[in-house]
Amino acid sequence: MSKLTDVPKRILIGRALRSDRLGETLLPKRIALPVFASDPLSSVAYAPGEVLLVLSIAGVSAYHFSPWIAVAVVVLMFTVVASYRQNVHAYPSGGGDYEVATTNLGPRAGLTVASALLVDYVLTVAVSIASGIENLGSAIPFVVEHKTACAVAVIVLLTLMNLRGVKESGKLFAIPTYVFVSGVFIMILWGAFRGLVLGDTMRAPTAEFHIEAEHQGLAGFALVFLLLRAFSSGCAALTGVEAISNGVPAFRKPKSKNAATTLAMMGLLAVTMFCGIIVLALVTDVRMAENPATDLLKNGFPVGSGYVQNPVITQVAEAVFGKGSFLFLVLAAATALVLFLAANTAYNGFPVLGSILAQDRYLPRQLHTRGDRLAFSNGIVLLAGAATFLVWIYGADSTRLIQLYIVGVFVSFTLSQTGMVRHWNRHLATETDPAKRRHMIRSRAINTFGAFFTGLVLVVVLATKFTHGAWVALLGMMIFYATMTAIRRHYDRVAAEIAAPEGPSDDSVRPSRVHSVLLISKIHRPTLRALAYAKLMRSDTLEALTVNVDPAETKALREEWERRGIDVPLKVLDSPYREVTRPVIEYVKSLRRESPRDAVSVIIPEYVVGHWYEHLLHNQSALRLKGRLLFTPGVMVTSVPYQLQSSEAAKQRARKRQEWSAPGSVRRGPATERAKEHSGRE
Amino acid sequence: MSKLTDVPKRILIGRALRSDRLGETLLPKRIALPVFASDPLSSVAYAPGEVLLVLSIAGVSAYHFSPWIAVAVVVLMFTVVASYRQNVHAYPSGGGDYEVATTNLGPRAGLTVASALLVDYVLTVAVSIASGIENLGSAIPFVVEHKTACAVAVIVLLTLMNLRGVKESGKLFAIPTYVFVSGVFIMILWGAFRGLVLGDTMRAPTAEFHIEAEHQGLAGFALVFLLLRAFSSGCAALTGVEAISNGVPAFRKPKSKNAATTLAMMGLLAVTMFCGIIVLALVTDVRMAENPATDLLKNGFPVGSGYVQNPVITQVAEAVFGKGSFLFLVLAAATALVLFLAANTAYNGFPVLGSILAQDRYLPRQLHTRGDRLAFSNGIVLLAGAATFLVWIYGADSTRLIQLYIVGVFVSFTLSQTGMVRHWNRHLATETDPAKRRHMIRSRAINTFGAFFTGLVLVVVLATKFTHGAWVALLGMMIFYATMTAIRRHYDRVAAEIAAPEGPSDDSVRPSRVHSVLLISKIHRPTLRALAYAKLMRSDTLEALTVNVDPAETKALREEWERRGIDVPLKVLDSPYREVTRPVIEYVKSLRRESPRDAVSVIIPEYVVGHWYEHLLHNQSALRLKGRLLFTPGVMVTSVPYQLQSSEAAKQRARKRQEWSAPGSVRRGPATERAKEHSGRE
Repeated sequence: MSKLTDVPKRILIGRALRSDRLGETLLPKRIALPVFASDPLSSVAYAPGEVLLVLSIAGVSAYHFSPWIAVAVVVLMFTVVASYRQNVHAYPSGGGDYEVATTNLGPRAGLTVASALLVDYVLTVAVSIASGIENLGSAIPFVVEHKTACAVAVIVLLTLMNLRGVKESGKLFAIPTYVFVSGVFIMILWGAFRGLVLGDTMRAPTAEFHIEAEHQGLAGFALVFLLLRAFSSGCAALTGVEAISNGVPAFRKPKSKNAATTLAMMGLLAVTMFCGIIVLALVTDVRMAENPATDLLKNGFPVGSGYVQNPVITQVAEAVFGKGSFLFLVLAAATALVLFLAANTAYNGFPVLGSILAQDRYLPRQLHTRGDRLAFSNGIVLLAGAATFLVWIYGADSTRLIQLYIVGVFVSFTLSQTGMVRHWNRHLATETDPAKRRHMIRSRAINTFGAFFTGLVLVVVLATKFTHGAWVALLGMMIFYATMTAIRRHYDRVAAEIAAPEGPSDDSVRPSRVHSVLLISKIHRPTLRALAYAKLMRSDTLEALTVNVDPAETKALREEWERRGIDVPLKVLDSPYREVTRPVIEYVKSLRRESPRDAVSVIIPEYVVGHWYEHLLHNQSALRLKGRLLFTPGVMVTSVPYQLQSSEAAKQRARKRQEWSAPGSVRRGPATERAKEHSGRE
Repeated sequence: MSKLTDVPKRILIGRALRSDRLGETLLPKRIALPVFASDPLSSVAYAPGEVLLVLSIAGVSAYHFSPWIAVAVVVLMFTVVASYRQNVHAYPSGGGDYEVATTNLGPRAGLTVASALLVDYVLTVAVSIASGIENLGSAIPFVVEHKTACAVAVIVLLTLMNLRGVKESGKLFAIPTYVFVSGVFIMILWGAFRGLVLGDTMRAPTAEFHIEAEHQGLAGFALVFLLLRAFSSGCAALTGVEAISNGVPAFRKPKSKNAATTLAMMGLLAVTMFCGIIVLALVTDVRMAENPATDLLKNGFPVGSGYVQNPVITQVAEAVFGKGSFLFLVLAAATALVLFLAANTAYNGFPVLGSILAQDRYLPRQLHTRGDRLAFSNGIVLLAGAATFLVWIYGADSTRLIQLYIVGVFVSFTLSQTGMVRHWNRHLATETDPAKRRHMIRSRAINTFGAFFTGLVLVVVLATKFTHGAWVALLGMMIFYATMTAIRRHYDRVAAEIAAPEGPSDDSVRPSRVHSVLLISKIHRPTLRALAYAKLMRSDTLEALTVNVDPAETKALREEWERRGIDVPLKVLDSPYREVTRPVIEYVKSLRRESPRDAVSVIIPEYVVGHWYEHLLHNQSALRLKGRLLFTPGVMVTSVPYQLQSSEAAKQRARKRQEWSAPGSVRRGPATERAKEHSGRE
């Protein structure tokens, strides 16, 4: 009895849970910030270092340019944040840059943005994990000594977690992110207090090193180019800013306003941290070189290839808090954790973007279905594979991986902002309310400046980083673009092929009668059930069909058929090679030849078993036959399943799978909300 | 037009070819001998060496026992051949030892024989290829320097050939086998002529070596044990003798008589070659040691681990023909080739035995179907994998691999001969014709002696070789035995579960009405065709069902439904999570709950495409839904395929696959012949 009531109960409980979840998953700002901002906030762990690294090429004297570069990054950050605040208000559906570009600039631009974002997700995983490992390594040397292996291990771990379907929890994000942000702020404040009030001299562990400039006394164009390169590297701080614009549906109401506020908070936190770290690095005399083994001198000699260059953030923390102190360790751990969370956001974002692209038929249809485990799994494995490949090729070196990064981000920034300008132009053409027009003109100005500035940065990034690795990112984008175009073309071709003719459907192709053919190998419950069902269908003719593979068995079957007095004729096909498929196919074809206007219905009894190894023992010839029959025109194939006891096991598994929740569901917001927004737009 | 006539033509040509083939595939004795005897004949390439090798443990003086061991092997060979001549007459159906044991000793004995034979096939591949590589290596040193790699390469090559379905050709076997046999006979005759007539002194390349006896002056029980061990190794010459008894249906008429004659010829050739090589080895002073690196002395010093011990047959050939002479090279090449052919016979025999076991439900059903490519492929890959594993573990060392061999052969010899004794006892109990009785009593005597002698050898082999590796073969047999028992038990359990109740079938479970549900996502040709077919089926109710994944699309569908005036109600299911499977399953379940006595027929339109990557783009949700529906009781699932243009490509491929011929088809004889024999027995 308990079993019978079990099913409806489960369904009820399932339903109850589902509607409960709706409210729960809407995010307040204090949770939304860490969920969406772990990627951009965590990038302050590596971006300042990259700036110093590039400047070091011109010697340590070039470090005094770093505040100016920080200012440029801050201006850029404010521009981008201001621009995206417009996006969030104009496109609250969560389509993000892809939607903005597609709607306003056409599908090619949209697809370019999508390709850029897909590449970017891969690089987010690779860069964040490599950087996380380096941060962890400054506290635990073992980790940095086995950099690549540890990075791959983290990727594998994240992949397994996401494949298993760990429910993304806002709180899970909140704690390390807030610990990280507080840690950095405490560090900045404590550093300022020690330096300004106590007058302490804080020295980074690399303070006594000297840098051998690769190009001493760089000036003119070469210097400008170097500064631009340093600026490009600093722009790594901006990656992930667009995440919030994809996540508007996940916010509490008023959604757009809350999202815009969160965006502003995120920008403010990021620039403060970025600048604070740069200033502390200058004060504590952090020394970083692009090629530390040869360019970093200790007592006049190169430090050699055994030297491990720790990230700026941990060097500064060591100077401010003291080496091995509690706060130092907490900050190093929180930094690594936030970077891993940032990588995890890509695991969520990649399949989400995939499902949006699938809606537009650029990717296989099934990705469209929300929470489709298989589709998500494919996306996750693809992402992990590509990230592992990059990490392995580049030896988990965040500095080298960052050269590939940013291109994609700025491609999507630029196209999205350009699209927004078009958006406002279009709305301004019809809008008459002066107040609204003023507002729109203001928004357009912001987006125009955003488009111009991000476009400029894109050119700078391409010019300064192309040979350093940006070409790899461009190549990746092209591969995604080409694949998605091909998929879309395939779907379009099929759609044209199967389009229904207008008007009353043409009766010339409509079959007039159905011959039913029931396949029999033995008389047992499954065949008797299939026989009963076949009779119910009342087709024009019904015959049972068996293939004579073993004459003795066939004879026994014939005798039992008669003995039981089954009122359906039994036809026996000969099979000289003991095959089943070919004789049946040929018989069906011959039926079709005799009466081409009729349809043939082939009914196949099937066992349903619960384990994969049982599958190997049953239905193999039925499966093959079905596969072949599908290629025969004018045929329909009916399976009449018979559930064996062991099939219960499979049912249990299927139920468990149903309870799986797709990664990224928190950041997408409840599905019903999304559907509403979506249909509202149409 | 050409396309339309193409199909019937192909069918006709296919049919014509098929009946032509029947006569062609029946083997005359001169072709049957090489086809079935490459395995036992090729074993003279390693068996004599193994005898000397074991004897060398007691020092070179023990070599004078080798003729006596040869005599024992010859007596055993004649016994086995005489015994199997009885089998061939009594069981002409090709079931071989498995059939004899099962029929006379029961299924456990049969399964033991089957397990032994399966292990034996694996070892035939491993030993033959390892030995072939060693023979080739005596002409081409590179090969023996990279023994394991070359052996694995040959396994891979044979596997690919057999997977591709190279048609086994009698002629392909005939040429190298006859070249090998002639070569060995010329060597023996030329050696005898040089030694006896010309009075030449022929010296093997190892003639000047000395053997450091591991156990000097062995006597009493220890010496007997050593001689028994040497005899056990010599028994390797008997492997494969039973092959002919599996292949009777492939012979020309009178089948049994021809098979028996071929068996006798094979035995005669094998013992002559075996003895000739042993004698030549003694005359030319071949020196072989079990551990050549330490036990073989050159000028008083061990030859060291760099020394490669060439097989006896090539050492003798070098002594008789001269090193590097044309005949030496031809013989080395022919020996290697025959050994590879011997390995290839296992590739044919393994799936053939598999299909016989599948008939008795010890292996998955689909193996039963003759020429089923997938099933054969699985068998071939399993065989190749196991052989590669052994070759790799044992470093392609034929001497070490031979320790595992023979156990299986003698298990099957002993059980088969014991079975034959029972067979004659049973027949004698009813037979009254004195002439026939005399004949039977004579046969029984032969088989009794055979059973006794092979049983004795089995005990000797087990006693002398158990710790040297025979335990691995026994373990392998147990694994096969356990697996096949488990499979049989599963099939029996299912058979009991699905057995049809006797008497008029119980109407309590018979459904009374059918609700048809047609799944629709869009209106296009495939759905219109499915709709037309669904209407033809005249079920009690018919409704179209769509899942509301995208409200806009659903609205469009509803409007088009009405506009086209389709006279089938359209039901829309809501799906908050954009899923397709769950809402449909739940709806079907609710239909069943409302009227539990009715059946539900779910009709799914499907696209049929030609390439695997297109498959990824279509039908995925349909496939998943079908998979889940099969677990829902009271449901039948109908696919209405719509063939897209690209499906032609798949059809072409399927046609090509049909023309594939399974390995081993020559040795099994034409299927019709077999079927006749088979049904004749029942």
